[in-house]
Amino acid sequence: MRIEKDLLGELELEDDVYYGIQTERACQNFAVSGRTIAEYPYLIKCMAYIKKAAAMSNYHVDALKAEEKHAICRAADEIINGKMENQFPVDIYQAGGGISVNMNINEVIANRANELLTGHKGYDSIHPNQHVNMSQSTNDVLPSAMKMACFLYLEDLLKSLNKMEDILKEKTKEFHYIVKIARTCLQDAVPITLGQQFSSYLSFITRQIKEMKSLQKECLSIVIGATAVGTGIGTVPGYTEKIYEYLQEVSHLPVVKEENFFDGLQNADIYLKISGALKGLSTGLSKMASDLRLLSSGPRAGLAEIHLPSVQPGSSIMPGKINPCIPEMMIQVCFDVYGNDQTITFAVDRGELELNIWEPIILKNIFDSFTILTKAISLFTDKCLEGIQANEAVCLKNAENSLSLSVVLSSLFGYELANQIVLEAYEKNITIKEGAINKGLLSKKEADEYLNPVNLTDPVKILQILNKKRMGERLATSYHPC
Amino acid sequence: MRIEKDLLGELELEDDVYYGIQTERACQNFAVSGRTIAEYPYLIKCMAYIKKAAAMSNYHVDALKAEEKHAICRAADEIINGKMENQFPVDIYQAGGGISVNMNINEVIANRANELLTGHKGYDSIHPNQHVNMSQSTNDVLPSAMKMACFLYLEDLLKSLNKMEDILKEKTKEFHYIVKIARTCLQDAVPITLGQQFSSYLSFITRQIKEMKSLQKECLSIVIGATAVGTGIGTVPGYTEKIYEYLQEVSHLPVVKEENFFDGLQNADIYLKISGALKGLSTGLSKMASDLRLLSSGPRAGLAEIHLPSVQPGSSIMPGKINPCIPEMMIQVCFDVYGNDQTITFAVDRGELELNIWEPIILKNIFDSFTILTKAISLFTDKCLEGIQANEAVCLKNAENSLSLSVVLSSLFGYELANQIVLEAYEKNITIKEGAINKGLLSKKEADEYLNPVNLTDPVKILQILNKKRMGERLATSYHPC
Amino acid sequence: MRIEKDLLGELELEDDVYYGIQTERACQNFAVSGRTIAEYPYLIKCMAYIKKAAAMSNYHVDALKAEEKHAICRAADEIINGKMENQFPVDIYQAGGGISVNMNINEVIANRANELLTGHKGYDSIHPNQHVNMSQSTNDVLPSAMKMACFLYLEDLLKSLNKMEDILKEKTKEFHYIVKIARTCLQDAVPITLGQQFSSYLSFITRQIKEMKSLQKECLSIVIGATAVGTGIGTVPGYTEKIYEYLQEVSHLPVVKEENFFDGLQNADIYLKISGALKGLSTGLSKMASDLRLLSSGPRAGLAEIHLPSVQPGSSIMPGKINPCIPEMMIQVCFDVYGNDQTITFAVDRGELELNIWEPIILKNIFDSFTILTKAISLFTDKCLEGIQANEAVCLKNAENSLSLSVVLSSLFGYELANQIVLEAYEKNITIKEGAINKGLLSKKEADEYLNPVNLTDPVKILQILNKKRMGERLATSYHPC
Amino acid sequence: MRIEKDLLGELELEDDVYYGIQTERACQNFAVSGRTIAEYPYLIKCMAYIKKAAAMSNYHVDALKAEEKHAICRAADEIINGKMENQFPVDIYQAGGGISVNMNINEVIANRANELLTGHKGYDSIHPNQHVNMSQSTNDVLPSAMKMACFLYLEDLLKSLNKMEDILKEKTKEFHYIVKIARTCLQDAVPITLGQQFSSYLSFITRQIKEMKSLQKECLSIVIGATAVGTGIGTVPGYTEKIYEYLQEVSHLPVVKEENFFDGLQNADIYLKISGALKGLSTGLSKMASDLRLLSSGPRAGLAEIHLPSVQPGSSIMPGKINPCIPEMMIQVCFDVYGNDQTITFAVDRGELELNIWEPIILKNIFDSFTILTKAISLFTDKCLEGIQANEAVCLKNAENSLSLSVVLSSLFGYELANQIVLEAYEKNITIKEGAINKGLLSKKEADEYLNPVNLTDPVKILQILNKKRMGERLATSYHPC
Repeated sequence: MRIEKDLLGELELEDDVYYGIQTERACQNFAVSGRTIAEYPYLIKCMAYIKKAAAMSNYHVDALKAEEKHAICRAADEIINGKMENQFPVDIYQAGGGISVNMNINEVIANRANELLTGHKGYDSIHPNQHVNMSQSTNDVLPSAMKMACFLYLEDLLKSLNKMEDILKEKTKEFHYIVKIARTCLQDAVPITLGQQFSSYLSFITRQIKEMKSLQKECLSIVIGATAVGTGIGTVPGYTEKIYEYLQEVSHLPVVKEENFFDGLQNADIYLKISGALKGLSTGLSKMASDLRLLSSGPRAGLAEIHLPSVQPGSSIMPGKINPCIPEMMIQVCFDVYGNDQTITFAVDRGELELNIWEPIILKNIFDSFTILTKAISLFTDKCLEGIQANEAVCLKNAENSLSLSVVLSSLFGYELANQIVLEAYEKNITIKEGAINKGLLSKKEADEYLNPVNLTDPVKILQILNKKRMGERLATSYHPC
Repeated sequence: MRIEKDLLGELELEDDVYYGIQTERACQNFAVSGRTIAEYPYLIKCMAYIKKAAAMSNYHVDALKAEEKHAICRAADEIINGKMENQFPVDIYQAGGGISVNMNINEVIANRANELLTGHKGYDSIHPNQHVNMSQSTNDVLPSAMKMACFLYLEDLLKSLNKMEDILKEKTKEFHYIVKIARTCLQDAVPITLGQQFSSYLSFITRQIKEMKSLQKECLSIVIGATAVGTGIGTVPGYTEKIYEYLQEVSHLPVVKEENFFDGLQNADIYLKISGALKGLSTGLSKMASDLRLLSSGPRAGLAEIHLPSVQPGSSIMPGKINPCIPEMMIQVCFDVYGNDQTITFAVDRGELELNIWEPIILKNIFDSFTILTKAISLFTDKCLEGIQANEAVCLKNAENSLSLSVVLSSLFGYELANQIVLEAYEKNITIKEGAINKGLLSKKEADEYLNPVNLTDPVKILQILNKKRMGERLATSYHPC
Repeated sequence: MRIEKDLLGELELEDDVYYGIQTERACQNFAVSGRTIAEYPYLIKCMAYIKKAAAMSNYHVDALKAEEKHAICRAADEIINGKMENQFPVDIYQAGGGISVNMNINEVIANRANELLTGHKGYDSIHPNQHVNMSQSTNDVLPSAMKMACFLYLEDLLKSLNKMEDILKEKTKEFHYIVKIARTCLQDAVPITLGQQFSSYLSFITRQIKEMKSLQKECLSIVIGATAVGTGIGTVPGYTEKIYEYLQEVSHLPVVKEENFFDGLQNADIYLKISGALKGLSTGLSKMASDLRLLSSGPRAGLAEIHLPSVQPGSSIMPGKINPCIPEMMIQVCFDVYGNDQTITFAVDRGELELNIWEPIILKNIFDSFTILTKAISLFTDKCLEGIQANEAVCLKNAENSLSLSVVLSSLFGYELANQIVLEAYEKNITIKEGAINKGLLSKKEADEYLNPVNLTDPVKILQILNKKRMGERLATSYHPC
Repeated sequence: MRIEKDLLGELELEDDVYYGIQTERACQNFAVSGRTIAEYPYLIKCMAYIKKAAAMSNYHVDALKAEEKHAICRAADEIINGKMENQFPVDIYQAGGGISVNMNINEVIANRANELLTGHKGYDSIHPNQHVNMSQSTNDVLPSAMKMACFLYLEDLLKSLNKMEDILKEKTKEFHYIVKIARTCLQDAVPITLGQQFSSYLSFITRQIKEMKSLQKECLSIVIGATAVGTGIGTVPGYTEKIYEYLQEVSHLPVVKEENFFDGLQNADIYLKISGALKGLSTGLSKMASDLRLLSSGPRAGLAEIHLPSVQPGSSIMPGKINPCIPEMMIQVCFDVYGNDQTITFAVDRGELELNIWEPIILKNIFDSFTILTKAISLFTDKCLEGIQANEAVCLKNAENSLSLSVVLSSLFGYELANQIVLEAYEKNITIKEGAINKGLLSKKEADEYLNPVNLTDPVKILQILNKKRMGERLATSYHPC
């Protein structure tokens, strides 16, 4: 055991840990969840990027010696390369401002850098505050690292979304000719193709990809140099001019200085915007997953228009019972994203005077949302979307049986006559086609063409049909379902 | 009383109302809140724009006669000009899909157009479905009108925000030289100017203005022509090509066709995005209002750094008690915006198959948020921000007394020595300046310069001071509050 | 026009309004929504109850003269009897603490009481603060009136729920013998009766009724006598002892004194509890309404197991298309209750020092939730639940076709054999019954009995069948769907 | 490696794990978060209680042999005693219904029981479905275990709350004579004692304890015996009668049968109620923690009325800067409880037909809320509340300086005269006492008594003073702050 001390006294630390007394105090003060900041490796990495770039910048302006800089940079590199991942035991619930996150990093770097320089841990050569934290404050370092980490999490999310987009493109093509009934208010409406249905999912995901890319850009303006409250007090002269250059170099991220540091420290709405975008994405995923559950309901007493791949026995008794396991997992992940957004809303709303100090709970929730969404989207794509099969016969039958085909009759023969035929079809339990033929309105051949649901899903064909068969001088169109 | 009928039978209507049987049924079915869609005049107006443009387009392709078009357009114009505002009695809570909103408009236009053509109400010349709703479905008309209305609401919001931005600019300038103490975690930190504090509010509002303008653009791609489920079934040939042109003309909004109609009908995430932006704006307003409450607390046992204008007796007993009424109103409006976002989240999440049918509850909540935010921001600007006065003496005293000025000593003489002086200052209840002089570290003259809080709020001056007085070969900076 | 003045100066008021200068200032300061506190008549009424009881109590301890008491009581009675409903123009968004609500009532009573005594409005005989508000503070009056109003709103809600309970009882009985398929994860499961399904709704509502009654009790402990911060400062000696007695008398509500006034003023969690209960109720209503939408989906391409009453044309084209309008209205109302709970959560969380000042936004949201839920439940009961009809043939067919009947075979013949039969049934598209007979496991007669879905919904019959036909020494039961 | 198989094929499993193929599939299907159900030991324990009691009951009715029962019970006991904690790798995000939780338990027990009977893992003697899950369904087992686990979590929470209650009792007593200023709307109001302030916290916590105890009772009615959809299909005759007795015995919890099984399976509002109660508790904790932050703000430019114990350096530079770390941790935990409630609201709202299948996300969120609240409350009590010290001098000075003492003058000399004195006091920057003496209204001796803030915090003393000095025939009381 080794000993470190601070203003409140001394504490013993295990010989082999690199963190120090302030980290240890945080562990004791915040033994809330057992979950630690090590769950967010991108945050740790971006903190280390900043520490490294700060050391380079402080050295550049002669505030650090060469060997101090080297040692700090080497220690930071070890964190960046994932070699220190068990050295960040601070609980995800902690004091406002996140000082414990910053001090945890400072202490690990200081002890390691000291060890590199002197062969032993301790702060005699490199001090966590004096050297590692030079020109910095938790208040500018942590939010900057958070935004950079968001950039990286968005990168991962985009990979998942791109894969999903690819699969949806394939499915849209594959289902191009599967005609089925559309439903509004859960009631039978007019025909649509399964491909059109999937093109909606595809279009949604493509839009989200654009959204996420646009958000990435907003993550790149940061507050490094603002220090405690935005005035830059405590920075070494020349430091702020230089660090952005170094930080771009070490992180490979084109970070820039935020326009107004005071705004940057006080208002955390950027996280609400990101979380809001994740919530928006989730609503579409939840909707897609819910649709799939509904369309694959059955096998006999449900809609049964599609089959989802079977990923695990829904029940050991009933073969053919495909439980929509993966969509249900997806939906529940979305519910948690909504919950995380709720927490973030509280934290952002409560910004106060010179600093929004609720970053720890913000980072926990936003990074959790990223992690679970990214993974769930991949699983949803690979284990569900990719293997969906259409039940073509059921789809077609539903489309042909629909009383809503009457919209064509209404266009051709006017509202009142169409109405009559629908009523008869409903009562006699026949199709609209049969009704129109019985009534002598259409020949069998005409009916086959005009009331073919496949044609009715194609805007161009719909109009061709209507043009061909226009009866009087003007059309009597009036379709207003739901 | 006159009589109208539909499939379910007949109903009596007052002679002088222009709406018809379907509106009347809606009134009976949804007598929930007593609040009606007439509370959202921009929605009604945009619906009328669409009806007018649709008539022009249907006429263009010979599906309507000239006199029919003229009558419909004239009736629509009367709605647009606000002459029919008591004709929209449908409750804000209603069936999914909002058919009652659409039919209410259709019926008012039909009865009025009929009256214009024939001298009496009724549908003999102009039928609500056959003519007014021609080529349309509730499913494409309502969401299109909602997005256009959002554009107009954003216009109003921007006016309020621009006014607030102007006032904040003035205040930032006015408070440029008021030095005060910054607080993080509610604990005394380093000096800042009141102008810097207000520049944060200003910067926030300027960012929000950009955000809102960017959202306006997204409101301009709409789904007119999609009809019921996105296939365009029921449109008259040629109609969709033409209507966007007419709609731009009558609404003066550069609306365009959405890329994928299916996506446009099924996913309502645009409203979540707008609501999310309003929520983001609200967090900053709530933060600003909370700051003002805190800084104006007192008059004697609070911070008392600023005075808010007195808008009403906080109490008939205590003069000088300025209750922060307007900020409190602002905060409560923000709480409601958060609540509205909650409702919208549920509604958007529950999109289902070919249509998100929860538009009525979405429009209620998003338009309510717009209305109350726009008004509250104006009141907040005019009745509070504009008249804020600084209590300069209190601000300065707090800044001078702060133990955190020690950050300068730490930069100049190292961490340990600074530490010692702070401890002494705390115990003897003296200032850091007095401590530094007593200790012989600084002459009175030096102390007056280096520990002048005014200088310490200016990044350039801070660095000049540090450069001037650098003691050894390198600085010992390490400030990490909170 | 008449003139009133206060510390900030003078204002003109219309001759015929009873409210005064502070109300007028509030109207100017808080012109946010156009919605006023008059929308909550129970609140106004309970405020008036308190004013009346306070006057009686102040008179009892000789702090008011007899004619002053009489005049105040008569004016309060006029409010209680609904004669002043257009005299409360304060916006629902206003300053924290709700002083404007209290002053609005005080001023209306004072002007009216003065008029009764002197023939003219004004405060020469009865002053709003001096007399009407004697021994009171907004801080104890408003929360007390809010809780009492909640009691009354709960009373109305209970009436709606009782009616719904009655109808659900009838439906449970009516559907007792309708056997259908149950679904878990939207996949076909084992048989259930429609009556059992409705018994779940009934049981839910019965539980909620108990819940609401229990909440009513909690609304009866109030903070009258606490005045500004809980110490009772400003009350006339003897007042607090007496007022509860008078208040019970005038309001007919058995109100009692809260145990700890400080807690009563500072913590507003009671409203969160009530709102939480309304949210809980809403989840069940939303679930019920969603079930009905799903079960009535069709008419041809949906589940079509029940018919909902048709309340308005879902479309002028398609007869038979019953849009589930009323359930959809119900669901949207529930979404708003969730949103209101969100706002209340913010307001309650932000309680601060000696008072939770966010009562105005709390009362707005909680009373809105009460109003819309009460009305929507009535409409849902009368226009939907009461008229639901079962599609008995569809229900039975689905139950008979279900592969999950295999659970019986599994109990009787073991897991492996049952498994084999299900596989065959699925592939050959036959029923489980046919499969069992084909396989020679059961005679036609036996199969008719053991695999009759009607029997399988009755726990007693299930066990009788199993007992009758137990094959070996023990059963091989293992059903674990979903 | 050993091999297990199911309908989808075979999978290899590590020799030493007790779980089986369905658990392994779940691990592959739901690799979302890395967090597993083992984080909720009470859930695992209660599942094991049910498995054990079910085996006893199945044996009782001759459906299991003695040695089968013994082996299952012994395996279950090992889980109950915490020996299997690394055997539950199913992710907290998973399919609806939670079948993987149930199968994980079933497989661990089956493999272990088999091992006990035969010396090797496998299902030849004890089958996870056939024997361990006999008479059960995931649908009745999981919600029953969830409610029982809630009972146990509530037990832990109550321990934390009881400790907090004890400390608050001490503090209330300790601060009994510390007089201070109360604040409403953050503006100076009338005097109160710090003990009265803490009595509010105490009273809040005492109420919450009652609330939690009452909730515990509701957790004891469960749905064991309902199996898949509430009809009890698949249970062995006699099983359901017996299992409640056995379950009480093994769990030591007085569990009873829910009245309506269908309701019990379909509606999950109990979790919303529990979560709502946790949210209610959190609002009070968040308020308390916020108050402590505000009252300890400073040290020089804040309210500084109390000192919080220092638990870690707020900054290495500034001694005396006590960062309110623990209250800030508490507040952030509350924010997460609000977020968890949000997720649960979605999950409960989405109940569907015969089962609310969203239990996995419900259990995750409700158990997380329990865990973090329980721990945070303990830390808040031990590391903050217990060590709070009052800054008596500051408190008293603020109380004496308050202009609101004028409320006494108003009571004694009428509104107008009091008003005048306050105005003068404000302008001349003197106290109310000085003003009253200067004006000749009170002698020094009288002023010392009547305007002693200590007296003004005691309702009895206030009234004694008023009675003693009543001037005319009646009092002129009218205090209405905020």
